[in-house]
Amino acid sequence: MPLTAVAGWAAGGATLAETGEADVLRRLVAAARERSAPGLELPAGDDAAVWRPAPGLEVALSQDAIVEGKDFLRDWTTPRQLGRKAVVVALSDLAGMGAEPAWCTASLCAPGSTRLGDVVEIQAGMLDALEAAGCALAGGDVSDIDGPLVIAVGIGGTLEPGQALRRDRGRPGDALLVTGALGRAAAGLRLLRDSPGEARLLSAAEQAWIEAQVAPEARVSEGQALVRLGAEAGGDISDGLLADATWLAEASGCSAELWVDSLPVDADLREAFGGAWAELALGGGEDFELLAAVRPEHLAALLAAWPAQLAPLTVVGRLGDGAGLTVLEREGGAPLPAPPVSSRHYG
Amino acid sequence: MPLTAVAGWAAGGATLAETGEADVLRRLVAAARERSAPGLELPAGDDAAVWRPAPGLEVALSQDAIVEGKDFLRDWTTPRQLGRKAVVVALSDLAGMGAEPAWCTASLCAPGSTRLGDVVEIQAGMLDALEAAGCALAGGDVSDIDGPLVIAVGIGGTLEPGQALRRDRGRPGDALLVTGALGRAAAGLRLLRDSPGEARLLSAAEQAWIEAQVAPEARVSEGQALVRLGAEAGGDISDGLLADATWLAEASGCSAELWVDSLPVDADLREAFGGAWAELALGGGEDFELLAAVRPEHLAALLAAWPAQLAPLTVVGRLGDGAGLTVLEREGGAPLPAPPVSSRHYG
Repeated sequence: MPLTAVAGWAAGGATLAETGEADVLRRLVAAARERSAPGLELPAGDDAAVWRPAPGLEVALSQDAIVEGKDFLRDWTTPRQLGRKAVVVALSDLAGMGAEPAWCTASLCAPGSTRLGDVVEIQAGMLDALEAAGCALAGGDVSDIDGPLVIAVGIGGTLEPGQALRRDRGRPGDALLVTGALGRAAAGLRLLRDSPGEARLLSAAEQAWIEAQVAPEARVSEGQALVRLGAEAGGDISDGLLADATWLAEASGCSAELWVDSLPVDADLREAFGGAWAELALGGGEDFELLAAVRPEHLAALLAAWPAQLAPLTVVGRLGDGAGLTVLEREGGAPLPAPPVSSRHYG
Repeated sequence: MPLTAVAGWAAGGATLAETGEADVLRRLVAAARERSAPGLELPAGDDAAVWRPAPGLEVALSQDAIVEGKDFLRDWTTPRQLGRKAVVVALSDLAGMGAEPAWCTASLCAPGSTRLGDVVEIQAGMLDALEAAGCALAGGDVSDIDGPLVIAVGIGGTLEPGQALRRDRGRPGDALLVTGALGRAAAGLRLLRDSPGEARLLSAAEQAWIEAQVAPEARVSEGQALVRLGAEAGGDISDGLLADATWLAEASGCSAELWVDSLPVDADLREAFGGAWAELALGGGEDFELLAAVRPEHLAALLAAWPAQLAPLTVVGRLGDGAGLTVLEREGGAPLPAPPVSSRHYG
């Protein structure tokens, strides 16, 4: 199959311009009210939705936008996958706090030529991801834009007071742990970017990497488990381990070292990308795994108590005194030149 | 002065592409933490901010985006005014619920060629509006876009349980009230649109209409006063009285009539726009005034108790049995053809 020929965008049907803003919004509000309103006192459709938080809880708040041409291309994704990913990016921030998702709001900016059917599918993807997380679509808007598709998702979740996984709570000596496997979404991105239109059979591994890029999961249960098991420092790995470990160390007033040989990376990814696998795992981003810093005296108990059905934890480094991030071949091994952080934005 | 030559956008200085996404975000987070974090347990800068709502309150949630080329042109506004308006649009939704603003999150999509100084000014305008409303900037993101500027603002505010001003709580016989004056923002828009680059002296009234378009206020105190004085049905007038009254009537299962002669419209606006003043007042939108439906037996007491320092209330119509919206010359007068609802989006 051609790597970048994804079916799923409507070839016909009414456009947004033909439908009119009021009717588009009416349709989306009806779907939001029908499929997703757990915990809302007043669902989408008024000036604002109304939500009643359980007494005594704190609320984690975040917002993220994804932009066509920068974060995705239409050729890479179905509209449903796109809506799903927009929500997962936001859910991942809640996962990085250990919060329980409660509600989200969304702004969709789409040109008037966009098919209504595609917008309905984008919202359906959002609702898929939200329902799976027990989260309500509380509202938002649809705007005309003379430019690329933009989806901005605001999100809120609940926390026991003082229980947030914070970037600034690491201490020298803490073990650095990650969930799941790294580099898969970046490998998928590289396949999509480097082989546009190429028609060939994909291996199961290649399909899985592309899936990791266009249909990622957020580690919501893992974030809550980390908090429950006493972790205090951590966050999600949306920008790549290198960048996110740097920020955690910086916020905590520590240095950090990462051990390349310890990184959880699929064997076939190491094989397929030769010398570049470490770059994908360290710098790639978008795996939406979690990073945590755990006191060495708590580490064994946390690993022993880790629920088997969750993504596995791997120790990949350590916080230290001082500042700055070092990449080592292995624990106690030789320092390596840090691969570039492949920021997707602003060159 | 030329109507569309607004100074205030940076002619030089580093662009976002030159600065790099991480440094742009770092700068914005620092400003958010310095200027605006009332009520946050953990300010912007982690995966999410953390907010602790006062016990027993409900939370009103909304999100709105404004898009360059559709909602504004750079020639019309300074970057600071633009940031301010993006927040006011969102605050107005809270005002329409009678909620007290608590926090907002924001996504800014801007091309790499945008000057960092302009982005800092946009954020400063947001912080101006948020500080005035006692509201915290809890976080958000900055994204590269190959297209127009987009600002998406998520917002939350608190309410006593069951006290929201809702669109669906009107009843036949209710008086329809509006705050302030109508048509000013639409008049300003018409001046900006129809006289681009025209160099002439503006009257004080014309300047005020342009100000109403580019630097509107949200009626937050008025919304809270309506709730406190017992109103149950209402919302903001962001899309024009005609559209917002239609939606209130529809949600409440009522018909509505509006009385043109009762509309609160500046005398000089009536004069300047001749026969078009009613169209501006009914269909224009963006005045961000409030509309409320009040039981006839409560009307006199509410008007008598209305605080003098707030925008005045004017009775402009009535809900009735049945469905649909009728525009009358005056109370009990002849029906007029309803002017077109001038939706700004999707044709």
